Amino acid sequence: MLDSNSLAEHQRHLTLIRPKYYTYNQIDQTQLNPLLPSTNPTMETGFFSSSILTQDELKKIAAYKAVDQHVESGMILGLGSGSTVKHAVDRIGELLQLGKLHNIIGITTSQNTHQQALSLGIPLSDLDVHPVLDLAIDGADEVDPHLNLVKGRCGSLLREKMVEGACKKFVVIVDESKLVDHLGGSGMAMPVEVVPFCWKFTAKMLQDLFRESGCVAKLKCEEESGEAFVTDNGNYIVDLYFKKDIGDLRAASEAVLRLAGVVEHGMFLDMATTVIVARELGITVKHK
Amino acid sequence: MLDSNSLAEHQRHLTLIRPKYYTYNQIDQTQLNPLLPSTNPTMETGFFSSSILTQDELKKIAAYKAVDQHVESGMILGLGSGSTVKHAVDRIGELLQLGKLHNIIGITTSQNTHQQALSLGIPLSDLDVHPVLDLAIDGADEVDPHLNLVKGRCGSLLREKMVEGACKKFVVIVDESKLVDHLGGSGMAMPVEVVPFCWKFTAKMLQDLFRESGCVAKLKCEEESGEAFVTDNGNYIVDLYFKKDIGDLRAASEAVLRLAGVVEHGMFLDMATTVIVARELGITVKHK
Repeated sequence: MLDSNSLAEHQRHLTLIRPKYYTYNQIDQTQLNPLLPSTNPTMETGFFSSSILTQDELKKIAAYKAVDQHVESGMILGLGSGSTVKHAVDRIGELLQLGKLHNIIGITTSQNTHQQALSLGIPLSDLDVHPVLDLAIDGADEVDPHLNLVKGRCGSLLREKMVEGACKKFVVIVDESKLVDHLGGSGMAMPVEVVPFCWKFTAKMLQDLFRESGCVAKLKCEEESGEAFVTDNGNYIVDLYFKKDIGDLRAASEAVLRLAGVVEHGMFLDMATTVIVARELGITVKHK
Repeated sequence: MLDSNSLAEHQRHLTLIRPKYYTYNQIDQTQLNPLLPSTNPTMETGFFSSSILTQDELKKIAAYKAVDQHVESGMILGLGSGSTVKHAVDRIGELLQLGKLHNIIGITTSQNTHQQALSLGIPLSDLDVHPVLDLAIDGADEVDPHLNLVKGRCGSLLREKMVEGACKKFVVIVDESKLVDHLGGSGMAMPVEVVPFCWKFTAKMLQDLFRESGCVAKLKCEEESGEAFVTDNGNYIVDLYFKKDIGDLRAASEAVLRLAGVVEHGMFLDMATTVIVARELGITVKHK
C-alpha cells in the first residue's frame, strides 16, 4: 500500500517516537489501562513487540490514548463509528464513571455508537442543539500523508462528515494498514452516498468521471441478502475502486458533489487535525 | 423584479421579436393551436393584446411552441413539472395521437408528470436505461439574463437536475414574471434539498453561508398540515430568501454542495439552452 517515498512523507509528520518494549505479562499485570498516559505516561510513545499484542489490543491502546490525551471535562464530543472508536467510547464511559471526566455531551454518527453511549450513561445530544463541537474521535479507512481520509465503508459517511465538519479538533485512530500514499490507494472502496432514484445512472456518471483512474463503480450490497445496502438516511452507497491515483483531491471532491444524484462522498479533506496510528511496534501520533 | 439594466441585458439575448397583434377571437376561431409555428408560423414571434389572454393561455402558447419547435420523432425527452409543462406534455400526447410524432420516449421528473404522461400514452423510461436525453422541457421559478435558473419550488429539484443535466438541449418555458436581474432577486424561495438528519443544523449553515446577502433559511412545510414537506427522495427542503445579490453563482453552488447535509440546490447554472418567455404582449425566445 505504501511506497518508500510515502512512508518517508508519513514519517515526516510523526512526533515523539521513542521505543520502549513491554511484554504481554507486564501489560496484563496492571489493573487499568497500563499503556496510557494517564496511568503510565512513559507509554505515550512506547513500542511493543509485535508478537504479543493483537490488532484489537493495539486499536484499544490507540483509542484510549486518544481519549486520555484529548478529551476534557465540559467538552461537546463527536463520537464516530467502528471497532476502534468502540474502545474510545468505552473509555469515555469508564472515565465518567470514575469521576475523572464530567459534563461531557456526546453526539454520535451512527445508531450503533448511539446505543453503546446510552448504555454507558454518556449524555447525548445532536447538531441541531450543539452546532459547534470541541472534538470528534473516529476511525478511518485510509489516511494519506497529508492526513486526508477515506471514511464511510461502514456506511455512515454522511453523518460522520456532518459531525466531524462541525468540530474544532478531529482525532482519527487507525491501525497501520490504513496508511496509503494516496486516497484510493488501498484498492478498497471509496464510498459515495447516492439517492436511490436512478442510482445506476449516478454510478455510471461517477465511473465516467474517474475513467482516467481506471475507476469501477459498484453498488454496496448487504453480504447476506445481496440486497442494496441502505444508509441511515435511506440512500444507497456506490463504492468506487481505483487503479490509479485520482490526482487533485479538491477538484475530485467538487466534481463528485456536482453530480445531482450524489448526496455525499467518503473523502474527508483537510478535516483531521491529529491521527493516532496503532503500529505493529507501537503507537505514533501525526499532527496536521 | 427587473431593473432597467437587467432588462436591457435580457433583451440583448432576445431573438426574433416582431410585433403582431391578434385578438382573442382570431385565436379562438382557429381549430388547433393557431398560435404555433406548425400551424401558423407567423405567430412564432407574435405579440398579443394583454387584456385578451389569461396567464395560463400565454403559458399554453409558450408550451406548445416549445414542443412544436423542438420536439422531433425518435427523441428521448425529459419532461419537467408544473403548470406550464403540463401543457407541453398535453401537446406531445396530442401530436403522438395525431401521428405527427412517433418513437418518443419520455423521462419524467415527478410523479404528477409521470401519471399525466401515462394517461396520454406517452412511452416512459428512466435515466438508468437512457443516460443521455435529446431534449428536456421544463418551467423555472427564476431566469437571470444569462439563462441561469432557480427551480424546484414545487419540490422536484433533484430529479429535475438529474434529468436536465443529462440532456443535449434544455428548453425552459416561463412567463415574464420569472425574469430576474439576479438569482434570488424575486425575493421568493431558492430551495435546497437536505437530509432530514439535523436539518436545523444544515439550515443554520446555509443561512451563515449567505449572511452577507441577508439570507433567511426556512423549512418548507405543507400548507395544510404544517408538517415538513418531504421530497420524492425522502428529504426536506430548506428555502433560502435573500435580501441582496449572492454574487458569484458558481462559487455559491460549490459552497452549498460542500455542506454535508445538503443533497442538492435549486440553482441550475449553465444548463438552459433556450428560454421561451410568455410575455403580456406575446412570446419571446432567448437562446444561450
